[in-house]
Amino acid sequence: MTPASRPSRSIDLNSDLGEGYGRWELGDDEALLSIVTSANVACGFHAGDPSIMRRTCETAAARGVAIGAQVGYSDLAGFGRRFIEVAPETLADEIIYQIGALDAFARLAGGRVGYVKPHGALYNAIVHHEEQAAAVVAAVRAYDPGLPVLGLPGSEWLRQAEAAGLTVVTEAFADRAYTREGRLVPRNRPGAVLHDPEQVAERCLRMATGEPIEAVDGTELHVRAASICVHGDSPGAVDMARRVRAALTAHGIELAPFTGGGASGAGR
Amino acid sequence: MTPASRPSRSIDLNSDLGEGYGRWELGDDEALLSIVTSANVACGFHAGDPSIMRRTCETAAARGVAIGAQVGYSDLAGFGRRFIEVAPETLADEIIYQIGALDAFARLAGGRVGYVKPHGALYNAIVHHEEQAAAVVAAVRAYDPGLPVLGLPGSEWLRQAEAAGLTVVTEAFADRAYTREGRLVPRNRPGAVLHDPEQVAERCLRMATGEPIEAVDGTELHVRAASICVHGDSPGAVDMARRVRAALTAHGIELAPFTGGGASGAGR
Amino acid sequence: MTPASRPSRSIDLNSDLGEGYGRWELGDDEALLSIVTSANVACGFHAGDPSIMRRTCETAAARGVAIGAQVGYSDLAGFGRRFIEVAPETLADEIIYQIGALDAFARLAGGRVGYVKPHGALYNAIVHHEEQAAAVVAAVRAYDPGLPVLGLPGSEWLRQAEAAGLTVVTEAFADRAYTREGRLVPRNRPGAVLHDPEQVAERCLRMATGEPIEAVDGTELHVRAASICVHGDSPGAVDMARRVRAALTAHGIELAPFTGGGASGAGR
Amino acid sequence: MTPASRPSRSIDLNSDLGEGYGRWELGDDEALLSIVTSANVACGFHAGDPSIMRRTCETAAARGVAIGAQVGYSDLAGFGRRFIEVAPETLADEIIYQIGALDAFARLAGGRVGYVKPHGALYNAIVHHEEQAAAVVAAVRAYDPGLPVLGLPGSEWLRQAEAAGLTVVTEAFADRAYTREGRLVPRNRPGAVLHDPEQVAERCLRMATGEPIEAVDGTELHVRAASICVHGDSPGAVDMARRVRAALTAHGIELAPFTGGGASGAGR
Repeated sequence: MTPASRPSRSIDLNSDLGEGYGRWELGDDEALLSIVTSANVACGFHAGDPSIMRRTCETAAARGVAIGAQVGYSDLAGFGRRFIEVAPETLADEIIYQIGALDAFARLAGGRVGYVKPHGALYNAIVHHEEQAAAVVAAVRAYDPGLPVLGLPGSEWLRQAEAAGLTVVTEAFADRAYTREGRLVPRNRPGAVLHDPEQVAERCLRMATGEPIEAVDGTELHVRAASICVHGDSPGAVDMARRVRAALTAHGIELAPFTGGGASGAGR
Repeated sequence: MTPASRPSRSIDLNSDLGEGYGRWELGDDEALLSIVTSANVACGFHAGDPSIMRRTCETAAARGVAIGAQVGYSDLAGFGRRFIEVAPETLADEIIYQIGALDAFARLAGGRVGYVKPHGALYNAIVHHEEQAAAVVAAVRAYDPGLPVLGLPGSEWLRQAEAAGLTVVTEAFADRAYTREGRLVPRNRPGAVLHDPEQVAERCLRMATGEPIEAVDGTELHVRAASICVHGDSPGAVDMARRVRAALTAHGIELAPFTGGGASGAGR
Repeated sequence: MTPASRPSRSIDLNSDLGEGYGRWELGDDEALLSIVTSANVACGFHAGDPSIMRRTCETAAARGVAIGAQVGYSDLAGFGRRFIEVAPETLADEIIYQIGALDAFARLAGGRVGYVKPHGALYNAIVHHEEQAAAVVAAVRAYDPGLPVLGLPGSEWLRQAEAAGLTVVTEAFADRAYTREGRLVPRNRPGAVLHDPEQVAERCLRMATGEPIEAVDGTELHVRAASICVHGDSPGAVDMARRVRAALTAHGIELAPFTGGGASGAGR
Repeated sequence: MTPASRPSRSIDLNSDLGEGYGRWELGDDEALLSIVTSANVACGFHAGDPSIMRRTCETAAARGVAIGAQVGYSDLAGFGRRFIEVAPETLADEIIYQIGALDAFARLAGGRVGYVKPHGALYNAIVHHEEQAAAVVAAVRAYDPGLPVLGLPGSEWLRQAEAAGLTVVTEAFADRAYTREGRLVPRNRPGAVLHDPEQVAERCLRMATGEPIEAVDGTELHVRAASICVHGDSPGAVDMARRVRAALTAHGIELAPFTGGGASGAGR
């Protein structure tokens, strides 16, 4: 590909998908799968069920959206949002199980699981929790050492993942405020979540082009991320994600899976 | 392999394994994995959990025991023993999920899922239930059309499996009485289950060598099976399985996975 | 109460409520609890969780809405909508468990469980299935022989319930077509479900006042029911329920729980 | 009862019971229910199912054994042995649900739930975790402020329970070593668990008669407990429990539920 034929910048948009369960729906997957380039698909432990997984993989593959395993604690009742002090070996096995199950549907759809992104309380725990972080890294390595992992820059688990030779991909959050140190402002603080679609879209554009954004204290902050996480669990969220996509493409930013090849996992 | 170097007869012994859950154990897997040549490993829907699946696959692979996906209804509370009128498409997705999850552990152990055998009420249902039978066949084909299926001779689902081009393997039951038509005597009838280890071992030997056994009405019956199912959920059951194995090997019958290559799935 | 001060007719409106689970919501409970007089509260086996049950009971009690145990099969994945061949004794125990759990929250809210109404596939099964019907009847009798049961006229389980001395209450469906024999037109037949709110409200008014409605073949049909079931799982359904209530009250029909005393269960 | 006709000392023996699930069994409930005077019955969240609960309550009631609600985290996969950071309000609702469900079976057996004892990781968590401790206390008070609670002396949750006006009952562990401060020696330390039935029986006798036992450092320690916890999840454990009971009765210690009246809950 020559420089001329290629946008100078490219970024991935990821979102949590397939988070219904049985009779229950959550989020507008149909809409999101026309917006994002990477789908974090729930694997049945905190959300998702076999039929939802199949349908989500089919639609993602059909639209060239990369399929990631959104692995979580075994906790349907809590939607994976409560920390569980599960033994690291058990956690690793649960994650391998989830990736394997999702991969069956990804392959059936003509693709494969292209990356792994932990969900909810597990995502938050392994920012610091060394043993559980090690368990997630071990699980991914055991399943496929070539599988990239997606997570928070500076987190313990990405540090361990990198040390273990995994491909590490960092993400930014479209609608979250950052501290001057580049950490997320905790949700319970004022201004932690941004609600103005215009502002959010503009920040995403800056992040995608390498320009600094404004931290919560007004200082400039460079957020380096190969992917931006958007949400789809409310009409407003879908609209915001759409605005983010539109702003990026309007400015010549290519939207493409960080895995390099959509659901087919080409390049791996 | 020349006729001289090879036993004239060969048969497979299969058993249900990995049927504990969390804190709960069931059966003597350690003993069984030294007796059988094919392990029907529960996949977490009616029994089994990720860690049990991993350990069972590891031991099976280490001992050259073939790994089969023992797929069942989503029913931990009922151990998969109650019929559920689940929609065929849902059932197919649940089975794909289970095979995919188990395959992750089989591969991690250096092998792969070598066959599929439905469990409990599902096993019984698809002897007749056309829609659910079709769902199981569709699931196996979707996952891997090269995957053999193990089941009851004369069952609807094996008929469909064969028509769909799957490799069909039939099994006999070591400790069950048969009608003159070759059907199992229902469990609630007198004499349905055989308890004398000597008698059971002798019948298995006859089945393995192609000789007729005695049906429940005293007539002679030829049971054709490439695999014999033994149980391990009681000390007596393990002892009986051991006797069956001893009797077969003492008479020069080779015990080998019907998949042809143990956990590695060679030949597929 | 003198004849003059009392509406000449009175009827109950019931609806399924509390059918979310954890992160997942279903239906507009808040709206429904201002419309109906009896709330069939899911008990955690096919839908509902402890916190949803507590909140639903609190709101119901605060508004004088009677609390009923909406008992179902143990099947979150299937929302209780698939028949399970569970053993009758097991089913009875599961129902006792569900009523007991809900009663804790009903009492905490100052009321008590005032009736029992089976859900989904269980509701449908016991229209005919004698053993499961007997199990439900046995469970209610075991828990409290004074507890009324709500169900389909002519069903096996109401027949058994009556024979066992339980108080039997029959219901009609606001939006369903009936055959000339008074049975529901199966959902897969054309015209089985009525969509015109005006028509539905008018039919409910006829049923409440003892006038005949038109069966699907155009003949006149008298539907005798002490309660009318309305739905709330879509904006249109809530609107229809509101129209039904408005039509009834506009014509002087009193809306009141058939239990006679709202959540407090007075009279029992 | 005159002083002469009554043993000068009395103590309760409690044990965890009904901890199977579906097809899976755990412990020898039948034997234990002939040894203990209080049964901590699992309520279906970490172990136990409706039919096991009913049977355990029936046997307990028939033998005059008090029925306690052994409440736990919602975690069948982990047997309630892993800490879950569940929100206090959710936890309280889950506990109310469990007590209510068990009470249905206790009442059906002619008794009632006579006390509450948390299980596993929840038991351990609320020794220190203030919010979860408060949730358990709130749940018991909400269900029935007259319901005694059973737990570890010096624990945060018993402190809160007492402050809230609940009847607090402390327990000792038959087979655990104590520090000089009266705390349990952590399980991972040498000598934490006692294995000699003779020694265990002798210690229990001392605790029941108010004599000091030897702490792990050789100093004397007075353990005040109205109940002694014994286990039954292995043949050795049942034998030890039997020895403890024999030693106590041989020395004229009366064995009786601390609730004062067996399953019938008399005195409350």
